[in-house]
Amino acid sequence: MKLYDGGRNPNPRRVRVFLAEKGIEVPVVFVNLAEFEHQSADMLARNSLGEIPVLELDDGTMIAETIAICRYFEALHPMPSLFGQTPLEIATIEMWQRRVEFRLFLPVAAAFRHTHPAMAKYEIPQVAEWGEANRPKALAAMQMLNKQLADHIYICGPEISVADITALIALDFIKPAKITIPDDLTSLHRWYQMMKARPSAVA
Amino acid sequence: MKLYDGGRNPNPRRVRVFLAEKGIEVPVVFVNLAEFEHQSADMLARNSLGEIPVLELDDGTMIAETIAICRYFEALHPMPSLFGQTPLEIATIEMWQRRVEFRLFLPVAAAFRHTHPAMAKYEIPQVAEWGEANRPKALAAMQMLNKQLADHIYICGPEISVADITALIALDFIKPAKITIPDDLTSLHRWYQMMKARPSAVA
Repeated sequence: MKLYDGGRNPNPRRVRVFLAEKGIEVPVVFVNLAEFEHQSADMLARNSLGEIPVLELDDGTMIAETIAICRYFEALHPMPSLFGQTPLEIATIEMWQRRVEFRLFLPVAAAFRHTHPAMAKYEIPQVAEWGEANRPKALAAMQMLNKQLADHIYICGPEISVADITALIALDFIKPAKITIPDDLTSLHRWYQMMKARPSAVA
Repeated sequence: MKLYDGGRNPNPRRVRVFLAEKGIEVPVVFVNLAEFEHQSADMLARNSLGEIPVLELDDGTMIAETIAICRYFEALHPMPSLFGQTPLEIATIEMWQRRVEFRLFLPVAAAFRHTHPAMAKYEIPQVAEWGEANRPKALAAMQMLNKQLADHIYICGPEISVADITALIALDFIKPAKITIPDDLTSLHRWYQMMKARPSAVA
């Protein structure tokens, strides 16, 4: 199999950190987003939506969408589990993965994509007012996480899960979105330093 | 267990259609969104985000987030499977569930919530330009689905999946968002009539 990857962009990196946490190595093909290679005829044939990452299986089957790729590897290699094993673990991790994705990851992305001049050719139309409206949403999500992390080591409990990975990637991306973590969110800061110190964070 | 439910709103209905397809009955507590009952102290204690649906287990554990609730029931009652069983099925259904959710369900919701006067007290701030920008996104998603459904009975193959349920709920909601399915998307129309004729659609 081959993973079509796009460097430091959030979604490709989310898959790489996930694979690093699972201890899985996959051959990577670099796709240059700055040169719009993700929109080339070859890449559109792999994913008509022109997005990366895309996982190509040996029989030519394509799996797009970051979390779908992660779930594929989780199903092939269940341990260490990052999506949970019991019904309650599965539900709790999905709940937090979605809260982090919808309330932090997407608002950070919207703040960046709708306000940064360099994004004007990718995000059409840019709606600056929508970008601005997303900064307070991201801050509210940080407060939500800070509260959860006051009595949880990782977001869903004593072990890391995919929700932590999504949150790490989102926080690593707040600077270009002109968002900062308020100093008083001490539990979130504690967790963020812990996540950044994991070997997977350099993936 | 108890399901805190909100009538005809899209996310509560998504869980009810899912349960109907699984053949599972769960006691329901109606939460009146029009009277802001989802923001009452009791409901905020169940889900600090003030959103429904919320599933309350017999030991008091709360599961929020529509798809997390669905996954809980899938894990408890695997058949009929709506999230897939093999690694490739799991990945393919997750890919389409996410494509439908991010490219159709959310744009339809944004078009409605950011342009309809009745939504001004729920969506703060309303950004009309963002609402307008989402109508073409929803149309592009319909074209994507029409292409997929040209040679697939359901979105992911011969059997219904959670991706079909998310798409059904989104299309049932396009009228208040002032979006229509173009006449030439014949495969999408064929699928939509088939979905509306299933017993679960009245849930």
